[in-house]
Amino acid sequence: MLDATAAGVYVIAVTPFHGDGRIDTASADRMVDFYRGCGVDGMTILGMMGEALKLETDEAIGFSRQVIKRCGTMPVIVGVSAPGFAAMRALARSVMDAGAAGVMIAPPGTVRTDDQVAGYFDQCVQTIGADVPFVIQDFPQASGVQIAPSVIRRIVAAHASCVMLKHEDWPGLEKVTAVRRLMEEGAMRRISTLCGNGGIFLDFETERGADGAMTGYAFPDMLVDIVKMQKAGERDRAHDLFDAHLPLMRYELQPGIGLAVRKHVLKLRGAIASDAQRAPGTSLSAIARSEVKYLLQRLARRDRRAAGLADDPPLKRSGHA
Amino acid sequence: MLDATAAGVYVIAVTPFHGDGRIDTASADRMVDFYRGCGVDGMTILGMMGEALKLETDEAIGFSRQVIKRCGTMPVIVGVSAPGFAAMRALARSVMDAGAAGVMIAPPGTVRTDDQVAGYFDQCVQTIGADVPFVIQDFPQASGVQIAPSVIRRIVAAHASCVMLKHEDWPGLEKVTAVRRLMEEGAMRRISTLCGNGGIFLDFETERGADGAMTGYAFPDMLVDIVKMQKAGERDRAHDLFDAHLPLMRYELQPGIGLAVRKHVLKLRGAIASDAQRAPGTSLSAIARSEVKYLLQRLARRDRRAAGLADDPPLKRSGHA
Amino acid sequence: MLDATAAGVYVIAVTPFHGDGRIDTASADRMVDFYRGCGVDGMTILGMMGEALKLETDEAIGFSRQVIKRCGTMPVIVGVSAPGFAAMRALARSVMDAGAAGVMIAPPGTVRTDDQVAGYFDQCVQTIGADVPFVIQDFPQASGVQIAPSVIRRIVAAHASCVMLKHEDWPGLEKVTAVRRLMEEGAMRRISTLCGNGGIFLDFETERGADGAMTGYAFPDMLVDIVKMQKAGERDRAHDLFDAHLPLMRYELQPGIGLAVRKHVLKLRGAIASDAQRAPGTSLSAIARSEVKYLLQRLARRDRRAAGLADDPPLKRSGHA
Amino acid sequence: MLDATAAGVYVIAVTPFHGDGRIDTASADRMVDFYRGCGVDGMTILGMMGEALKLETDEAIGFSRQVIKRCGTMPVIVGVSAPGFAAMRALARSVMDAGAAGVMIAPPGTVRTDDQVAGYFDQCVQTIGADVPFVIQDFPQASGVQIAPSVIRRIVAAHASCVMLKHEDWPGLEKVTAVRRLMEEGAMRRISTLCGNGGIFLDFETERGADGAMTGYAFPDMLVDIVKMQKAGERDRAHDLFDAHLPLMRYELQPGIGLAVRKHVLKLRGAIASDAQRAPGTSLSAIARSEVKYLLQRLARRDRRAAGLADDPPLKRSGHA
Repeated sequence: MLDATAAGVYVIAVTPFHGDGRIDTASADRMVDFYRGCGVDGMTILGMMGEALKLETDEAIGFSRQVIKRCGTMPVIVGVSAPGFAAMRALARSVMDAGAAGVMIAPPGTVRTDDQVAGYFDQCVQTIGADVPFVIQDFPQASGVQIAPSVIRRIVAAHASCVMLKHEDWPGLEKVTAVRRLMEEGAMRRISTLCGNGGIFLDFETERGADGAMTGYAFPDMLVDIVKMQKAGERDRAHDLFDAHLPLMRYELQPGIGLAVRKHVLKLRGAIASDAQRAPGTSLSAIARSEVKYLLQRLARRDRRAAGLADDPPLKRSGHA
Repeated sequence: MLDATAAGVYVIAVTPFHGDGRIDTASADRMVDFYRGCGVDGMTILGMMGEALKLETDEAIGFSRQVIKRCGTMPVIVGVSAPGFAAMRALARSVMDAGAAGVMIAPPGTVRTDDQVAGYFDQCVQTIGADVPFVIQDFPQASGVQIAPSVIRRIVAAHASCVMLKHEDWPGLEKVTAVRRLMEEGAMRRISTLCGNGGIFLDFETERGADGAMTGYAFPDMLVDIVKMQKAGERDRAHDLFDAHLPLMRYELQPGIGLAVRKHVLKLRGAIASDAQRAPGTSLSAIARSEVKYLLQRLARRDRRAAGLADDPPLKRSGHA
Repeated sequence: MLDATAAGVYVIAVTPFHGDGRIDTASADRMVDFYRGCGVDGMTILGMMGEALKLETDEAIGFSRQVIKRCGTMPVIVGVSAPGFAAMRALARSVMDAGAAGVMIAPPGTVRTDDQVAGYFDQCVQTIGADVPFVIQDFPQASGVQIAPSVIRRIVAAHASCVMLKHEDWPGLEKVTAVRRLMEEGAMRRISTLCGNGGIFLDFETERGADGAMTGYAFPDMLVDIVKMQKAGERDRAHDLFDAHLPLMRYELQPGIGLAVRKHVLKLRGAIASDAQRAPGTSLSAIARSEVKYLLQRLARRDRRAAGLADDPPLKRSGHA
Repeated sequence: MLDATAAGVYVIAVTPFHGDGRIDTASADRMVDFYRGCGVDGMTILGMMGEALKLETDEAIGFSRQVIKRCGTMPVIVGVSAPGFAAMRALARSVMDAGAAGVMIAPPGTVRTDDQVAGYFDQCVQTIGADVPFVIQDFPQASGVQIAPSVIRRIVAAHASCVMLKHEDWPGLEKVTAVRRLMEEGAMRRISTLCGNGGIFLDFETERGADGAMTGYAFPDMLVDIVKMQKAGERDRAHDLFDAHLPLMRYELQPGIGLAVRKHVLKLRGAIASDAQRAPGTSLSAIARSEVKYLLQRLARRDRRAAGLADDPPLKRSGHA
């Protein structure tokens, strides 16, 4: 079960599909093995970038079961944000029964005031049960909801089952600091703080006190290294590695086609068989594909992990996976 | 199957619950009988005011089946708006198999430009199948999406299965006129136009050319009468009846507690056993209940349908009209 | 100077224009006299329905000066909401110098959390000066900002110059009650509470404890009577009068054309010479004009104030103006 | 006067303030000289990052006059977006009289449908005059308005005075391509396309056909070089330079504190005397300042322009490059 000591990288997993839209179960296993090979500490599935809304409930549960089983002892967090509590309850119950480590919840855009935000999480806990560890997803750009540090404190104080903050109040370095300070001052119980935003602020987030990353950049092994290096005090080395990846990370962060970029690179890396998205999806134009190729070529000069990926055809890698 | 000649009143049905949150299936049947007794031409279930988001998929399908069966030959439209196409497909398929007459869809707030709106409905038709009659729900206040008359025309031109517009571009009398004009000029195939917004503009909407109402005001029999009177050219009588109800209609339209008012009155009228909402719901304060009571007392002086409803305890009514 | 004892009707004034877009200064005086004749207790100018954003700063100040002068001892509140503090400061300073009784401020949509709302008003007070009485405009439908009663309490506690709440958290009867309860319990200093929303809930708002209305319905004399009757305990009489006006009030509340309706009726009543709006404005279609005429005819049967207004040409009234 | 052949870098200028909030006119001149020394082709003032909303009208006009005069023959574009047309007209008229090359306009969030967007620009042209060259600012993240390429085409077709698109539909590489394609196919008159978004996609935007950049990154000389290198076909060199700056560019793009970062670096570079923002502003925490310092140190290793900036105290630089 997820607890407040969680740290490292919880990768936001994609959901692999066949070209015809069916879930690619073989790739689901392969993906888990790939992520594990990258050294991640856990996985988060059915997030926004996991095309969760395109799955029927049965599919979502089936996919969760498979991933959880394949992960074995590696913890799996499942996104259960839903427009209604019935769907949240059903999914949370099913995935916890299947062995999930916890669930992640973003509030809907209709909650606004501090009381409404705190009250919403009260209802969530009533819905999923006080024994289910949960993650607050703090992502104003997507949710429209701003959660003040004082409100995070209220939620944490009210619910022992709140064990993690997924921070992506873009970019919100100051918010990481504010939340950490509440913990250091004893004003708030310690919870795990993992950062999202595609990773593009991970270099400083780790320095500001975050416990790691929860994002799905196609080189999670790099995220793992950054967290380790920063923990080991190797600041310059961490930034060198980070800066080498930043041009691609930024490219992958593009609204609209970011997921297409991510799946494309994961396919090149051998993590999944197809980069297809279930409809309605996006795909990369020929120009965009050539731009990714160019970025991978440039990256390969500075990080061996990208070696061969931009070749035509890409080198079969015998590496991580 | 729903077609473009539909007219009259398609009542937006509530979903009856027991106090403990279970669906009240006995009340579901009673409610159908009540609405039928009110003279409605059809029913729309699982709309926003039907607490659709609080139902698990199986419940939504079970409830739909029951209502459709009880309705017999009376057409039932089912709301299938969903944040993802998988849920939309699953629900649409199930309810059409169960005998629904058609489905209703509101676009999500993320679609903005004319092309995006038209493209969204293209994807919907691909999702639910070109053989499933559908209703465009045009409700900018709730959806955030503005659909220009020219875009309605595009959707209608592209999809023979688009047979109805649920108009609630609050209040949008000019839009009713604009859409009707497109039809009269032959620029757009005729579709049915029913109006929502809690009914508070039905007096003029019917004069502007709308074919009727699709809303859930707790006196649907009054809506039926308005539509009939206007059709019969009895303008003053229609307005007299309408004006008598307007104070209560307006009270029922309050965001936040409107549904509580509606269910409360439906319970007083004997349509459902309990006015409970599934959590998270709202309930009427003592003051609000006394205000409704006062409005019902005043209404009773001008419309016999309200007679006895404000009594304490309310008169048991035999039949409802 | 405005203080927390203010009560009654502060009418939201229109800004009269000539057909060519120039401010109609003759009508500005005539309008003040008309409103005064209606028995209002004060005026609020440069609100959203006062086309404030269409005025250049010099025009806004000039118009304010004229109205304030004509009002004499009758207090004038000036809307100074602005996207930036510089414009707010400039306008507030000018109109207070010209003799305004206070200013009204709605927060911009970018402030969200409780701290942000409270902090915004802190900055406003810093901007306009702690000696300038101000009104919190609480209008989530227009501003996108939800202000919890506890936040209103914070603002009131922090700033002695906060003397009034313009409540239009549509419709928010429960909020009126919540705010009044804070005052009654001594948790919050008493401030004046006037209600907006076009007046369509004034019947119950006054019963819930509101001190009156701040809205611009074209029959402010009716609003005055409602407040007086309720104060005198004549509940049924108040509702009878209110209900007679509700069909027109509702018609005037239509987004998009509401102001055109209001100016049209004010012109019929002789309050202003032209119903022109400065571009970009809306105007009434022929159908809409005939609908208003019909509503006025119906109203005339129940309230003598509407007598003659629907005639063609309208009777010259020797009444208020 | 601005025309459709404009290309290169039009830097988004800051507005320099003294610590006490007064405009720092000496720095305004110094800043112009700095930007000119950076090799920019033009300047854009009173944009969102120019704290335009914090200026009173007279200040805005005075500042514009000073900058325009100091710029001499270098074209100056002035942002005139305003919530109302009166303010837009007044400002546009004044700055054009003072010698501005053109104005820039972003639509307000209330316009949604294609017709509304096109109609809004029709009204703008009526407001500012058909002889005033204008720039469409396409910035959905800030404005909430999505402008389809087909709508850009409509605006361009309707108004000869539309000469430029400021593209920042984040990041929208595909949109740059779509707009360029319309021009190449002859479906749309050629207009200048400059890109914003803090520059973080300039590497590919220039390859996609954009004519340059309109953004305010604190190293505009780098932007100038990127545009030149790409024009000269030096792709790798352009990306090398770009990648060296990306960590800082990304840091400067942070909502909330981005402007504080930008002004801080501009001060370090000697462009302005103080990094103060007029209230309500943000300032850099000690941690943030040290992060910027670290980024500058790292940058200095790859671009001599950053040399000395991170020293403590910073080296006095003679000239800026």
